[in-house]
Amino acid sequence: MDTPGTDFTCADPGYVERVRGSFERQTVMGTFGIALVDVAPGRVVLEMPHRADLTQQHGFLHAGVVSTALDSACGYAAFSLMPADAAVLTIEFKVNLVAPARGPVFRFEGTVIKPGRTITVVEGRAIERGDKGERLVATMTATVMTVLGRVGIHH
Amino acid sequence: MDTPGTDFTCADPGYVERVRGSFERQTVMGTFGIALVDVAPGRVVLEMPHRADLTQQHGFLHAGVVSTALDSACGYAAFSLMPADAAVLTIEFKVNLVAPARGPVFRFEGTVIKPGRTITVVEGRAIERGDKGERLVATMTATVMTVLGRVGIHH
Amino acid sequence: MDTPGTDFTCADPGYVERVRGSFERQTVMGTFGIALVDVAPGRVVLEMPHRADLTQQHGFLHAGVVSTALDSACGYAAFSLMPADAAVLTIEFKVNLVAPARGPVFRFEGTVIKPGRTITVVEGRAIERGDKGERLVATMTATVMTVLGRVGIHH
Amino acid sequence: MDTPGTDFTCADPGYVERVRGSFERQTVMGTFGIALVDVAPGRVVLEMPHRADLTQQHGFLHAGVVSTALDSACGYAAFSLMPADAAVLTIEFKVNLVAPARGPVFRFEGTVIKPGRTITVVEGRAIERGDKGERLVATMTATVMTVLGRVGIHH
Repeated sequence: MDTPGTDFTCADPGYVERVRGSFERQTVMGTFGIALVDVAPGRVVLEMPHRADLTQQHGFLHAGVVSTALDSACGYAAFSLMPADAAVLTIEFKVNLVAPARGPVFRFEGTVIKPGRTITVVEGRAIERGDKGERLVATMTATVMTVLGRVGIHH
Repeated sequence: MDTPGTDFTCADPGYVERVRGSFERQTVMGTFGIALVDVAPGRVVLEMPHRADLTQQHGFLHAGVVSTALDSACGYAAFSLMPADAAVLTIEFKVNLVAPARGPVFRFEGTVIKPGRTITVVEGRAIERGDKGERLVATMTATVMTVLGRVGIHH
Repeated sequence: MDTPGTDFTCADPGYVERVRGSFERQTVMGTFGIALVDVAPGRVVLEMPHRADLTQQHGFLHAGVVSTALDSACGYAAFSLMPADAAVLTIEFKVNLVAPARGPVFRFEGTVIKPGRTITVVEGRAIERGDKGERLVATMTATVMTVLGRVGIHH
Repeated sequence: MDTPGTDFTCADPGYVERVRGSFERQTVMGTFGIALVDVAPGRVVLEMPHRADLTQQHGFLHAGVVSTALDSACGYAAFSLMPADAAVLTIEFKVNLVAPARGPVFRFEGTVIKPGRTITVVEGRAIERGDKGERLVATMTATVMTVLGRVGIHH
C-alpha cells in the first residue's frame, strides 16, 4: 500500500532548488522568521521560533500563523514531486489545534500521503520543542493542485 | 429552522466590550493591520488592507494570513454569545481558497451557524474589494469550544 | 460578490435530465430510500425518511448516512453546472454534526458557493423535519472536480 | 512527542467489551456488513466486502459509505480510551477521497493522534485489498468528544 512520505520519485531532478527558490519568494516566510530546513521527495520541514508579535490573546502563537507555516510545508512537499514547469495551488486545508503553541521553537512537517497527476493530498504536523521535549501542537490535511500551462495562477 | 447569523441572544450584555478587549490582546491583529469593524450577536467583521510583507510567491496574501483573520472573525463571533467568564478555544477549522487574495482591501466575516453550550459551529467568508467590485476569496468552517472555569486554556 | 446558489448558468441545457440520470445510477440512493426532489442551476435537494436499519448506537441516523446524502446533494449541485460530457468527482468533504439525526424526515440541500472550470466548492445542509419544526442536523463543505475526457474516473 | 497509536493507556480495563458492545448496537454496521476486527488502546480496525447495493454511479462504494465505516473506526478508537461511563460524540470529520473504492475488500483503521479529556483527534485510513495488493482509498480526520453525565447525548 501507499506508505506516506517514502519512496516518492521526483519528476524534476532540480526539485530542491525549485522548492528553495519558490520558498524564498514567499515574502511572509521571511516576515515570520520561518526557515526551510529540509526538502526531500514528498516531504518538507520548516522551523520558526516563537514570536511575541504573532500571538493571540493568551500569548501563544496564533492558529493562523501555525497554519501559514503548515500550509507552506504541505504545499512545498507536494511541489517537490511536480514537473519543473508546474505551479502549486492549495485548494483547501483543515487544521486541528491540539495544544497551545508555546514554543519556544516550532517545527512544521509536510508529508505527501497520496501524490496525483492533478490532486495531491498532504499531511502536516506542527511540533513544539520546549523544556519538556517535543509536543504535537497542530495537524493539517491539505489538498494541493498541480497547475500546468496556465499563466495567471494564484499560488 | 436555525437561520445563520440572526436572532441570537447574547448571554452577556457586555459582549461588545468583551470581544473588543480580547481582540486588542491578540497582538498579531495589530501586526497584520487587521481592524475589528463590527460586532453583533453571533457575528463579527474584520478588515485589513493588502500587505506586501504577508504574501506568497505570486504576490497574493498568503492563505495562512487569510486564515488568521478568518479564525479570529469566527472565534469572536462564537465568543460574542458566550457567558462573561468563558474563554474561547478554536478546536479546528477548514478553509477553501477559491480565488487569489489580491485586495487591495479584504473583509472577513464570521457568522455563527449553530451555537451550543460547549461546541459552536461558525462559518467564515473572506471577501476582497477591488476595481471590479467584491469577490469571494476563501471560506472557513470553524469548530469553537466554550471553556469555563479552567485556568490554563490556550485561546 | 458571488452570491451562493443564485444566478448560475448551466453550460448544458439538459442538466436536469443529466443529474436525474446519474442520480438513478447511484444504487445506494435507492438502497437508503433517498429521493431527488429538486434540481436547479447549482442547487440540488434530496430527501429521505428515518430508517432504523441505518442507525448508530442511540437510534439516530449514522453520521455516515447523513454524509452519503449530503455528498450526493453537493456533488450533483456542482454537476448541474458542468458541461454535458463531464464527470463529477468529489475530492474531499468536511462535515459538522450539530444535532442528533432523529427525523422522522430529512432534507439535504447542496448549494454551489463557487463554481470553477476545474474545482467547484459546494455547501451542504442536512435538516430534519419533526414535531417541533425544522432543525439543522449537519453541515458539509465539499470540494468537487470537473473531469473531462478521461475514461476511468471514479465518481 | 506524541506518537500516533502507541502507548495509550485505557482508563477502563473493560474497553474491548465496551467498544464491542456499542459497535453491535450500531445497526447500520450489520446492514452494511461491516465487522469489527481489532480493538487496541486508541486504535480500532473494521472490515467490509464491496457491496453492489451501496455504490455510486460508476459501481464504486459511495464515499458516504466509506465515511460511515471510517467514522465508526475513528469514534471507537477514541471511545477505547474513555472512562467506562462516557458516551462518544463525533463533532466533525473531514474525508479525502484519493482513489475509487473498488474492493473487493476494505479495511478501515482509526488511530488516535491526540487524546484529551474532552476532545480527541483521530486519524482514519480506508484501504482496499485487491488483485494488485493494498491501496489507500480515503483518509479521515475526526474530532471526537467525550460526553460525561449527560442523559440525552446523540452518539
